[in-house]
Formats: sequence, structure tokens, C-alpha cells
Amino acid sequence: MLGAVLHGPRDIRFEDRPEPKITRPTDAIVSLSATCICGSDLWPYRGIQPVTQPTPMGHEYCGIVEEVGREVTNIKPGQFVVGSFASSDNTCVICRHGYQSSCVHREFMSEAQSCLLRVPLADGTLVATNDLPPKELIPSLLATSDVLGTGWFAADAANVKPGSTVVVVGDGAVGLLAVLSAKQMGAERIIAMSRHASRQKLAREFGATDIVSERGEEGVARIKDLTKGVGADSVLECVGTPESMMQAIRATRPGGYVAYVGVPHGVELDGEDLFFAHVHLHGGPAPVRRYLPELIRLVLDGKIDPGKVFDLTLPLEQVAEGYRAMDERRAIKTLLRP
Amino acid sequence: MLGAVLHGPRDIRFEDRPEPKITRPTDAIVSLSATCICGSDLWPYRGIQPVTQPTPMGHEYCGIVEEVGREVTNIKPGQFVVGSFASSDNTCVICRHGYQSSCVHREFMSEAQSCLLRVPLADGTLVATNDLPPKELIPSLLATSDVLGTGWFAADAANVKPGSTVVVVGDGAVGLLAVLSAKQMGAERIIAMSRHASRQKLAREFGATDIVSERGEEGVARIKDLTKGVGADSVLECVGTPESMMQAIRATRPGGYVAYVGVPHGVELDGEDLFFAHVHLHGGPAPVRRYLPELIRLVLDGKIDPGKVFDLTLPLEQVAEGYRAMDERRAIKTLLRP
Repeated sequence: MLGAVLHGPRDIRFEDRPEPKITRPTDAIVSLSATCICGSDLWPYRGIQPVTQPTPMGHEYCGIVEEVGREVTNIKPGQFVVGSFASSDNTCVICRHGYQSSCVHREFMSEAQSCLLRVPLADGTLVATNDLPPKELIPSLLATSDVLGTGWFAADAANVKPGSTVVVVGDGAVGLLAVLSAKQMGAERIIAMSRHASRQKLAREFGATDIVSERGEEGVARIKDLTKGVGADSVLECVGTPESMMQAIRATRPGGYVAYVGVPHGVELDGEDLFFAHVHLHGGPAPVRRYLPELIRLVLDGKIDPGKVFDLTLPLEQVAEGYRAMDERRAIKTLLRP
Repeated sequence: MLGAVLHGPRDIRFEDRPEPKITRPTDAIVSLSATCICGSDLWPYRGIQPVTQPTPMGHEYCGIVEEVGREVTNIKPGQFVVGSFASSDNTCVICRHGYQSSCVHREFMSEAQSCLLRVPLADGTLVATNDLPPKELIPSLLATSDVLGTGWFAADAANVKPGSTVVVVGDGAVGLLAVLSAKQMGAERIIAMSRHASRQKLAREFGATDIVSERGEEGVARIKDLTKGVGADSVLECVGTPESMMQAIRATRPGGYVAYVGVPHGVELDGEDLFFAHVHLHGGPAPVRRYLPELIRLVLDGKIDPGKVFDLTLPLEQVAEGYRAMDERRAIKTLLRP
């Protein structure tokens, strides 16, 4: 079976890999309808996160169940399923509180840029649709697997409510879908921080009411100007750098909410600064499984079209070009068809 | 007028100071019924927070209004009042969101260890009782001004709800009243981390169900043991050191809540650790003004007795002994009678 393997910085290869098998009775094997490249895949691709051995890539997926282990009872061969990037039993005390991405049995998925995928804890990880969905909805259903689920968590973790004033820091695919999520949750004003025309356009399509192209101190000053001098109710940090985190905290009003959903790289927070900023802070790996049933329903009902973030579609074998296009910011997000 | 002035590490003097006057039309002058020494006063007293010039001390107070400026309309001479350690207009957008301690016109009070106090923004800062309260309730009413209000904020910011499992880190007066607050909010289990017999006893009186005397890694392990291996729903950090903050974050279950209410000293948080801890984090200077009406009512109705944290009462002129007793941990908290 062929799949994407990262050998070192900017060295992604489409090469032979062992075919996945049922190894535990709770596993399922899924034949992928679509997979894609995540912004977080660029950290190791760029060498910022070191890769010490050839590493299979990919954690976003949807497709048709091929086979299930003998203890799998809810998921059946032939069903169309979407799963989260983190497997979960969906029954432990942490899952029951809605934090499936910190399930006591969690494994992070990492081999989804391929044709076939083994999914652990299939009953707790996968969500099946009633019928096979129409082909044109596959990109939006794929998006629920991580990029939309993560943007949605950002809006939820930042307490976005009807009438909220929201800032989104980051115009990558997660940031853009955080805009869509905030809109769905009833935000009145959504300020997208972006300096790229094509992304600004998509942000507006998804519901952004204002665009701020300044960054850092200037960006914070612009947000203050737009929010009666006090900052926004909710700020959604969708990047993960020290600069974006500080920008997010400083753009929030005292008593407001900062959510952060990109793995922080090099971020250190000063306790005293945070104390006097007086914000709520919440983030982490998005508990996508909690939101999947609702997000899939919104897609199937035609209420949202998160698949628009895929502005490049390639056959899986051209995965290397998919990475290059995202690395060079020629593409927002690349969908791969096995 | 005589009052407490800090001249340098462990050098507190009871000496002559200018009598406070109405300087702005929104001021009030309050004749203090009682004042006290805060755990946070020990940071500069111990020289951990440098003092560069003689500094009047004290920010907890209640008493009788002597005089008000011409723009003060709600507060009247002769009323008994309690105020927060942070003045607030109680009308700005931040106040309206309940964060009066970050009011756009905030000033931190700092001259309350004396007989008379000027309170800025009297209408927004002070809460008056209907009648003069009985003398025996003065300690508990004084406690609402900061130490109870801060413990209450800790429990509120950590989302304590009926049935919650709560950990309180820190057995100072704030930590002890955080226990009382969690109890009032319906917590089912309240684990106090304390290694001092007298404080453990008071924690149990206030509602603690368990005591953990271990600290650091061992303390976290004990909390995990007591919480099905996953950590507590809500952890209230009432100290402000790097050790106590890490202990709090690591004792919280993924998806749980950490509140921190002591000014952090030397605390740096690693973004990636915090991300994978998956906790909610909220803290800052407690918006005591938000809670004052409710807390005063609970005291007047005899529902709570937070004044028990004062285990030493001295005449104001013995303020230096009051500091020494707290510094040497001979007293939990010292009440001073002007």
C-alpha cells in the first residue's frame, strides 16, 4: 500500500508501507474517501519539530468501513464514517466530560495520508452517517474530522455566544473555520486578522465583519479601537506562536476569553501578566469527537460549507506537491484523493 | 493621623501620616471600624517585592462614612460600608461584565491600615448596609472586603458547582475561605492541601472533606488517587508561587478548571504543557465588588462566619506585631482595631 512518509525537512515521499490490519478487537479498517494536509503537518515538514526517523503522516480522514474487530458493535462494514485525529473510548470519565481528545486510552492518529487506515477504538472514535453521502459533500465532511472541529472548539472554548464580539488570530484553515464557527454560534461581530487577500475573501464569506491586517502591537491597538478601547469578548488563537498568543491575550477585554487550539511552539506565559490581563484561557487538542455528530449534521443539512477551505485538490500520489503548495502559502489547505 | 507605613523589609512603623481629605467630588472619607493585614502584604514586608520609599499599607476595610464629595449620590454619611481593595466606577463596560477590579478607572487601595480612609469612586466602590451591623459581625464583614471575596472568586472562576470535586492549594486565609466558598457553592468533595494542624482544623470547619498534607509531585499523586486517577474538576490556587501553580494545573482533570487568585511571583507557564493539560485557567485580582452585596447578605443572615480566619486581634498601634505574627505563621490573619 502506498502512503505519505516524511523523511526529513521538506522531504515527503509517497512510498510503499505495510497494509494496515486489525491488530486489536476494537479496531476498524477504513478505506479512505479523502484525506488532507494539516497546518500542523508543516511544523515537522519545515524541520521546526525534528523528525528522527521516516514518519508516516496524516490524521484527517473519512471513508468507508472495510472491516471491524470482533468487539466493535456500533460501527459496521460498508458505513461511511468520519473520525477524530485522536482516538477515544468515549466512555471514560474524561470522555464523559466531553474531552475525548484527552481520553485515558487516546492515541493520536498519524497514518491517514494513505488509502487504508486502521482506527483504534472504532466504536468510540468514529461517527457513521445513515446513508452514503453525496460525493460533493466529501470535502466538507472531511473538514469536520479536524480543521472544522478545531475551529469549532476554539469558538466554544472562547465562550462565543449570540451577540459576542470575536477576534480570530490566524488566517490558516483553522482560523477561517473558527470564523465560520463563531458565525454559527451567533457572534455579532467577527474580526479576522489577516493580511492575505484570498484568505480575507474567504473569511468574509464565512462571516467575518471586519478585517485587521496589522499585527503585534499595531494589531492589538486596532482591535482596541474597534472594541470601545477595552478588547474583544472572545479571541480565538489559531496559530501557536509566542507572537500570536500575546496578540490574542492583549486583544481580549478583562473578563473575556482566549482560546488557543494550535500546538504552542516556544510559548511561555508570564503568570503576572496573565493575572492582570484578567482573561479566561482554555485550549488544547480539540475534542472533535464531542462535536462530530452536530458538525456532520450541519454539513448534511447544507447549513455550512467548510470544505471551501480546500483550495487545492490533488491525487494522493501528488502529496509532495500538496505540502509544497501549503508551505509556500500557494494553497490554504490541500485535499488528497486516494 | 497615625497609620502603618512600610519602610523596608520587616520594618513596619505606626507613624503620623497626613489626614485623608476629599480630593475629588466622587470621594468618600470612611472612619474605619476594622482593618487587617493581607497575605499579599507579606510580599513587600519580606522584601520579595522591593519597597523603594516609605509606603502606607492596607487595602481591606469597613467602617462608617464620615463625609462624601458633592458628586456622591448613593453613599451617605453615617452609613456602614464595605469596599473592595480596588476602586471601581461600577458603570464602565468592564464593570458591567462583572470585572470591577479591572475597571477603566480602577485604583488599588493602599492606605487602609489607619483610622480614616479616602475611598475614590465611592458610589461604585462601596456597599452600604441598611442598618449599623452588630459589633460581633464586624470581623466577618471586614472579611468580605478582600479575603472572602478573593476566595469566592477562586471558587467561581474555577466553576465550582453542586457536586464538584474541588482541591484548594494553599491554607492561608484566602485558601481557607476558598474552602468555605466552595462549600457554599455546593461542592461535594473539598480537598484542602495543608500541613498545619490549626489550619486543617479550620478548613474542616469551613467544609473540607479531605486533607492532603503532601506537596509537589507527591501531592499531585495523592489528588489523583482521590479522584479516580484523573484529577479534580476544580482546583483553586491560592498561593502564587511556581510550585503551587504547577501543583494546581497537574491536579486538575483534562477539561477541568484552575483558578488562581494570588498575584503570581516568578510564575512562567509553558504553553505546550498547558495545552496538553487541557485545563481552563482563569484568575486575576478578584472582582470583589461584584460579590459584595451577596457576601454581606450571607454574613448578616448568619449563613457564613468568614471572620473565623482572624485568629489574632490587635489594636492598630500594634500593627508591627500583627505583621510579625503572620510572617512567623503564628497567626493566620490579624485583625486591627483603630
